This record gives sequence, structure tokens and C-alpha cells, in this order.
Amino acid sequence: MKPLLFGLFENAQANDSGTAAWRHPDHARIGFDRLAYWSDIARICEDGGLHWLFLADAWGWAEIEGARPDVCSAESLDLPRLDPAIVLAAIMPQTRRLGLVFTGSTLVEAPYAFARRVATLDHLSGGRIGWNVVTTGTAETAAAAFGIDMVDHDRRYDMADDFMELAYKLFEGAWEPGALERDRQGRFADPAKVHRVRHEGPFFSCDGYGNASYSPQGTPVLFQAGSSDRGITFASRHAECVFLGGGDAGSLRRQSQTLRAEASAFGRTDPKIVCAFSCVVGDTEVDAWAKRRRQLEAQRSEVAAASYAMFTGLDLSAIDRGTLMRSLATELSRTQLDRFKDCTVGDVLDRWHENGVRPAPIVGTAVQIADALCELADEAELDGFMLTPIVQPSSTIDFVEHVLPVLRERGAVRPIGGASTLRETFFDRGPHLPSDHPGAAFRSR
Amino acid sequence: MKPLLFGLFENAQANDSGTAAWRHPDHARIGFDRLAYWSDIARICEDGGLHWLFLADAWGWAEIEGARPDVCSAESLDLPRLDPAIVLAAIMPQTRRLGLVFTGSTLVEAPYAFARRVATLDHLSGGRIGWNVVTTGTAETAAAAFGIDMVDHDRRYDMADDFMELAYKLFEGAWEPGALERDRQGRFADPAKVHRVRHEGPFFSCDGYGNASYSPQGTPVLFQAGSSDRGITFASRHAECVFLGGGDAGSLRRQSQTLRAEASAFGRTDPKIVCAFSCVVGDTEVDAWAKRRRQLEAQRSEVAAASYAMFTGLDLSAIDRGTLMRSLATELSRTQLDRFKDCTVGDVLDRWHENGVRPAPIVGTAVQIADALCELADEAELDGFMLTPIVQPSSTIDFVEHVLPVLRERGAVRPIGGASTLRETFFDRGPHLPSDHPGAAFRSR
Repeated sequence: MKPLLFGLFENAQANDSGTAAWRHPDHARIGFDRLAYWSDIARICEDGGLHWLFLADAWGWAEIEGARPDVCSAESLDLPRLDPAIVLAAIMPQTRRLGLVFTGSTLVEAPYAFARRVATLDHLSGGRIGWNVVTTGTAETAAAAFGIDMVDHDRRYDMADDFMELAYKLFEGAWEPGALERDRQGRFADPAKVHRVRHEGPFFSCDGYGNASYSPQGTPVLFQAGSSDRGITFASRHAECVFLGGGDAGSLRRQSQTLRAEASAFGRTDPKIVCAFSCVVGDTEVDAWAKRRRQLEAQRSEVAAASYAMFTGLDLSAIDRGTLMRSLATELSRTQLDRFKDCTVGDVLDRWHENGVRPAPIVGTAVQIADALCELADEAELDGFMLTPIVQPSSTIDFVEHVLPVLRERGAVRPIGGASTLRETFFDRGPHLPSDHPGAAFRSR
Repeated sequence: MKPLLFGLFENAQANDSGTAAWRHPDHARIGFDRLAYWSDIARICEDGGLHWLFLADAWGWAEIEGARPDVCSAESLDLPRLDPAIVLAAIMPQTRRLGLVFTGSTLVEAPYAFARRVATLDHLSGGRIGWNVVTTGTAETAAAAFGIDMVDHDRRYDMADDFMELAYKLFEGAWEPGALERDRQGRFADPAKVHRVRHEGPFFSCDGYGNASYSPQGTPVLFQAGSSDRGITFASRHAECVFLGGGDAGSLRRQSQTLRAEASAFGRTDPKIVCAFSCVVGDTEVDAWAKRRRQLEAQRSEVAAASYAMFTGLDLSAIDRGTLMRSLATELSRTQLDRFKDCTVGDVLDRWHENGVRPAPIVGTAVQIADALCELADEAELDGFMLTPIVQPSSTIDFVEHVLPVLRERGAVRPIGGASTLRETFFDRGPHLPSDHPGAAFRSR
């Protein structure tokens, strides 16, 4: 069995994934705005030997016909939501090996300030940072809140390409590795290894010096999801870890094959491809299903339509349940439209009620879940998984205490070993971008 | 003796204040980009009973005739420099009572994202956050780096006023205190207490919901420096803690009287006024001066002109040493021009070489330093001081271990006591903005 990578998907809000698990009596993320919650999660991930903790993010809110439905406040559907970079920084001292991946938007961030923030995280963590690049699917409300123009779906990816180019110049080209000498009898840095960055792109420009020296990884490990055609092209070009949202083995295999073929056409060696999964673990299958039933009982059905509208702008409650999803269109998240293209509106409302953006959970014993993951990894040609928990922290504890040991016994978990940076945890090579990655071309020599 | 407030001024770069102390054998901030340095500082401040740790920041670099002089790299004069908000977040779990003040620029930040970042810090720290509002004196290079238009000095304050208004709407008005109920049998938040923020200002606009609920302090404690006329007006209106750069007792008294009079004209009760100071502590006066001599020996004189140019854009090395400073003008930091208005260019180069932006240190025994501080506080009508250290962490250790106990014995240190938020540490009232502060007008009822 090929050793796999495992991460935890988290979200700095009470709920995530478009469901309302906060009502579940065990769900501790009701205290998402207290440091104690994040300290617990960090310790569970670190001690459990997960490879990374991933913090999702979004800007904007659910809006139906110009208003945010009251159910969004009552069920904590979209807001409040905290800054994931700050949350990760706050748990950094409590972790030593855990990768820390946060989400940053190319729609609303200023690349020059963003590059400094990322480099600060990478320096202080000793090279454990990953950046999940998003173009902000919820662009319409986000743009209004930021007082900027709405940018349409495909153009957001053009913008992201421009953002990446400037980010690479700042991460890779502004300061050479080894520029800092810190020699009290000599000099602090070698001026010949500090370069002015110039960029005149269609969306962003910069004429200036990078703020931080070359960080342990230079460029953070680049994560990307996004399953639209344009999103797949972007991921094939830039992503080192592509995150698939779930689905059956056949559809996942087609996605991973497409991604690898496109990456190869860009002259790149394989990105890692990981897939979201949920699981409900029991001592027996019966126990596990009982646990699952209690999770569903905590959910409220009125959440589904508002939540789906946040991702896509589409109010399914106003559309006939028999309508085929393929007949709808959006300038917001196409990922959340395309994955249901063979379904009716009614199917989506029902499935969204249970799982939101998450895939349906694997329910069973630890061995059954381990079997299912190994089989799926094999059939869909995956390099690993990201746990999308339902009730926190018990979903994560169940996985790391019961399922992960079974997988480890089978040799199905990649050892962290002596790796010190996240990129080394992922790949059998050094801490920096490989030479076939487009970012490496911006490195100064 | 009135009890005083004491903070530490720090900077996430090897040097600060325009000097090059990094060559001093004891200066540990040569490792400013490692978590270990900041963990030490945090512990020293917390255990020593300082009221806050302040992280300065700047954008931009020293530029003389369109180029960054090589000495800037060799002496680590301006860059590299890390993100202060991330540094503070990383030391948060290691502190429990210490106020955490970071610098944020109204020139380059997006208010909507900035408000979420600040609220995240305030939530996770339990209300210990202060925001040092700056308009970015080094605006010319910063604007080029961000690819935005240069904004002139007084207009930067108009921009800052607009930024503050939107920030208050987001901090105070978007979510009412008590909006979160977290009641699993009821609702997470009361929709009637969540308000859409609308803002159409000359510089910023927003139409959207706040991302974070009302944080422990709502608005972070507002710090401000800036001694130009426009800067003083801004501080009188917004600042809760004004930070003076130093000078003789007479000049400081005039500044604090002006500030209190202007604040009073705005209908506000007194802001706290604190002053920068440095000290070099010895068992005897002779020891202290020997220590001071070693500090000066570590300095390089070629640093001064480049460093002064970073703050003001003026290359003093190209101007006759006898020229009066009052004949010069800048669109960058007027604070750093005005404080020398009675000096010649030659005086400034000499003084800048020794102290940069810092005031000249008080050199002597702990008792002598305590005497000098008490006297200055009394004569200049100050509420406290901010230590601008020379060699770190020894400057801070010397102060908290030797001088602070003497001051404490005299009742000259405000007890932290049961205060849980930074605002309560500062004022004898609750954690939120008082009703006479302009930000309070934006609170929703």
C-alpha cells in the first residue's frame, strides 16, 4: 500500500460546509472564537500525527434577493467567521511538526502585504506553511463589502494568475536564499542578493523590495481546489496539492487523471491529489449508524437553501424541485454547481441538508473505514485525504485514535520522520519549489 | 505619586529606530524572524508586569535618488521586516495579561479585511489588543510597492479619518454586544442584533455584514503618535493613548497640554499620554556609562543619513551641515522633521547616529532612572512611558528587574490587578469605548 497523506479540514466559524452541526451537544466549535478550542485541535492534530491542519475561509455571506436571511444568524451559517492566518499563528507555538495551511483570496488580498504575511508565518513556523489559493466563489457579496468591482468567474482566474506571478516574484525573487549573513563582524545581508521586484500585470503592479528574506520554504506549499475547467487549468499549473471535494471513485479517478495530464502538459511532475472525506466511527456498524443518526437529528432543514445560495447565488427553494441542475448557471462557485450536474434541485436540497459541501460520510468500524479509504485511494489514484469533520473535536479524535492506527499498521500513512518543512513532509525532495514548477522561474540566481 | 503605565516598544526587524544595534554582541533581535526571540520577549514583559508590548511597523524602505543604498542591507536598516499582527498572534498563548499593540496603516490596509483581523486578535486574546493607527510616513516607496497612488501628508489624515469611520462601523455597529446566544435549544445569534454596514466615504466604501461578532473590547485600544498639526488633531479626536517621541520636559508638557485641550474641545475625557524613553542601567553611574559606551561603539556612522532618508525622503549627507532644519520640507514623516526644527543638519546627523528616532537615553543607576522618570512624568503631565530598548532583551530585562521595582515601591506603577482587557488596564472603566469617544456613536442599540 502506498503511504498516504492525511490532513484535517477546519474552519474558523461555528459551522462549516453549509450544515448546522453546532446544535449537536458534543460540537465544541461553538467556541470557535476562543483560543482554547484551537489549542485543543492543534494538540489533537500534532499528537495524532496528521500531516497538516487546513483552515478554510470565505468572504461574503448568503444573500437571497438582496438580503441575508435571518436563518443565517440563527444557525451561524456563514458569519461570524475569523481570520484563519491569525488563528494559525496563535497555535504555532503549540505545534512543532504539523503543517499549517490557510486560505487566502486572490480577489481581495493586496499581494505585497499578503506576501509579507505568508513569509512571516513561514519564518516563525520553521517552514510549515501552506497557502490554499482561492479566487473567492462568493464574489458578489465580497466585492460589495470590500467596495470593489465584481469580477466574473473566469476573469477571477486571470486575476489569480497575475497574483501568483507577483507573489512568486516576492517569495522567490526578492531575496535570494542565503542573503542573510547575520555576521556581526561583517554584514547583516549581502546587498547583491536583495533584488527590486517590478511587476506590471493586468490586475496588479509593484515596484519595490520584498519585506521578508527568503523564508524556509520560499513559496508556501500551494493548495488549490476548484473543479471548473478554468479552475483545473489553474490547479494543474500552480498547485502542489489539489484538494478534490469528493464523489464516487470513477469521477475522482477522472479528475485526478485530468489534473495529472494537464500538469504534465505544463512540464510538471505530479502534484499531490487529496480528497475530502467524512467518517463516523463506531465499535460496531450499528453503533456508528446510531451516532450518524444523532448527527442528522441535530441538523435543521431550513439551513440548506440559504447555505447553497451562499456558495452559488442560486435560491433553490424558489425553483421547482424537479428542475435539472445542469440547466442552471452561476458566476459564483461553479464547483458547487458542477458536482450536482446530474441531479435535480430536490436531490441537491436533500443532500445539502445532510452534508453541505462535504461528501457523504463513511459510516462503520475503524477497519471498515480504513478499507474504504485504501480502496478509494487505489481506485481513484489519490495521494491522500483531508478529513472534513462533522462534530468537533470528536470526529477528529475518532479518526486519529481509531482509524489512523489501522492505516498505519498497513503502511498506508506517510511517516513524518525527520521532515522539518511541510514541503518535505509532502515530497521526497528539499524544502523549496522544484525547478519544474512555474514559481521557480522567478528565483534569482 | 500618580501610578504610571509602562509598555515596551518593539519592532519585528533586526534593528529599529534608525540605528544599527544589531552588531552589539548581546543584541538577540538579530533573530527577529525566529519564534524563540518573541517567546522570550513575551515572557519578560508578562512576568515583569509591563502593561503592554507594542510592535511598530513601516512599509517602504530608505531610498536616495531612486535607489536603496547598499548600507541598508549590510546594516539591516529598513528590511527585512515581518508582519507585526502575526508576531503578536504567535505570542498570544504564552501571555495572559499583557496588552498586545500592533501597528496598522490606513494607507495600505483594506478596512473590511483589517477589521476582521483585529477582531480575531481581540477575540482570541480575550480583549488585550491595541491598534497603533499610522498613516505611513514612508508613503512614497510604500505606494510604489503596493502599486497605488502616492497620497500627500495632510490628505493621508483625511484618508485615515475615513478609514476610522468605516472601522468604527464594523467594530461597533455590525454586531451588537450580546448578539451571540450560542443556545443549542434556541439560536446561535439574534438576527435583530446583526446589522448591515453601509459606508460611502471619499476613500473607502462598504456594503456588507461584519465578519466577526462584537469582540471583548469592540474597538481595540487606539494608539497614535504623530506630532504634525494634522497628526495632533487626528490623535485628539481618536487616540486613547498618545505616544510622544521624547524631548525635554517643557516641550513634552506643551504637547500634552495641546493634546488634552484639543481632545477636550472634541468633548472627550483625557486620552492617556505616554512618552518614549530609553535607559541604560548600571550598579553605579560609572558602570552605566561604560555600558552606554559599548553600545555606541557597536554603531556605524554611515547608517545615519540612509536611515533619516527612510523617514523623511531627505538626504542630509547631500546638504551643507550648517543648514537649518527648519528650511527643509517633506511629504513623508513631518514628525521626524519638526522635532529637529531648531537644529542644523550636522546636529541631526550626529544625534541620529547615536539614537535614531529614539530620545537620548537616561544613563545611571536604577534609582536615578526612576527619579528621572517620575520627575518627567510630573513636569510633562504624562500618564506613562514606553521603553524603546537599545539592546534586546537586556535593555528590557534591566528595566523590569531593576527600575520597575523601584518605581513600584513608590506606588508609581499602575497595578494590573483584576483587569482582563487592555482598556481596563488603562482606564478605570469598562472594556468598551466610553460614550464621549467618536467611535461610540456608531454602536448599534
